[in-house]
Amino acid sequence: MDFWFEFASTYSYLAIMRIEAEAAKREVVLRWRPFLLGPIFAAQGWHTSPFAIYPAKGRYMWRDLERRAARYGLPFRRPAADDPRVFPQHSVHAARIALRALEEPWGTRFCRDVFRAEFAEGSDISDAALLQTLVARHADPAPVMAAALSDENKQRLRGNVEEAQALGIFGAPSFTVGEELFWGDDRLEDALDWAVAARAV
Amino acid sequence: MDFWFEFASTYSYLAIMRIEAEAAKREVVLRWRPFLLGPIFAAQGWHTSPFAIYPAKGRYMWRDLERRAARYGLPFRRPAADDPRVFPQHSVHAARIALRALEEPWGTRFCRDVFRAEFAEGSDISDAALLQTLVARHADPAPVMAAALSDENKQRLRGNVEEAQALGIFGAPSFTVGEELFWGDDRLEDALDWAVAARAV
Repeated sequence: MDFWFEFASTYSYLAIMRIEAEAAKREVVLRWRPFLLGPIFAAQGWHTSPFAIYPAKGRYMWRDLERRAARYGLPFRRPAADDPRVFPQHSVHAARIALRALEEPWGTRFCRDVFRAEFAEGSDISDAALLQTLVARHADPAPVMAAALSDENKQRLRGNVEEAQALGIFGAPSFTVGEELFWGDDRLEDALDWAVAARAV
Repeated sequence: MDFWFEFASTYSYLAIMRIEAEAAKREVVLRWRPFLLGPIFAAQGWHTSPFAIYPAKGRYMWRDLERRAARYGLPFRRPAADDPRVFPQHSVHAARIALRALEEPWGTRFCRDVFRAEFAEGSDISDAALLQTLVARHADPAPVMAAALSDENKQRLRGNVEEAQALGIFGAPSFTVGEELFWGDDRLEDALDWAVAARAV
């Protein structure tokens, strides 16, 4: 199953913290696919997240996230309204590093650490120093950071975005099993069950 | 718990077919609140459903609905793309009758019948003859239809819409326990659990 996530996405945080345990229960193998929603939103005429464009939806999302995080036992810190890092954060640098990091066994841990820094610790994930510190937990950061900024890696991230768009993805997190698309943290279990059933065919 | 539903809303269909059994399990008393999303969407600058405005979201919604209906064992018939009744249907007449019907013990059955006609049988729920037939299963339809069109009843429906908007409701189905808002069929269980916990306080 392909797991499509965007580092600026609040519901991607919920999914990324849960997906490994849920996939392991069902013995489903995951492909981690970081991508960017910015270009996909722009194609729909949105210059930012719909949660930022539509205030009622935005207010609801934060409250819903707070309740869901509590239900899952996940730490969560809602950004203050006057915080410049408020929402959505700039995620392209994190996504580029993640793409490179996911070639290593520690890649998934790096991704979770970024989300935790953002939504549990109130950090700014566009900060290169923060990202470097998170990489340094696992490897010498300099070559990783350099590889992340290579033209080839940037192009790979664009490729992910194009593939997401071709699959009809319009939000994050999303999950795909072949051409079957599931959207939202609350469809994680459905998607995994689908992957199990597809395997049995 | 207040149950806010809109007759044109696909996910309201899923919720209305499940809510009584789920509420009964938890001994939660429901207030049925038909309302209209049209004025609420218009206030956000949308002239129709976001599922009609954003094609990727719309395609996904129909597929998701199909899968979810199958999971719940509910009949579902997706309207053909060239069907003039396609989506969203005009729901104001059904909502006005429902408001009146919900003063009677058979009101909830009438509401379910309308949704079933729309999403399982492919009927046009703006058709007064259809609505009249559905009322006639329970009562002499003429006085009910007349009361539904009274100024007082129309004003009551507008009151529901205003109250929904004041509560921050932006989609359907929604569920409220005091000021606590839950949106979407997939939050039905969370909302009911919240109502149980609120009662225990």
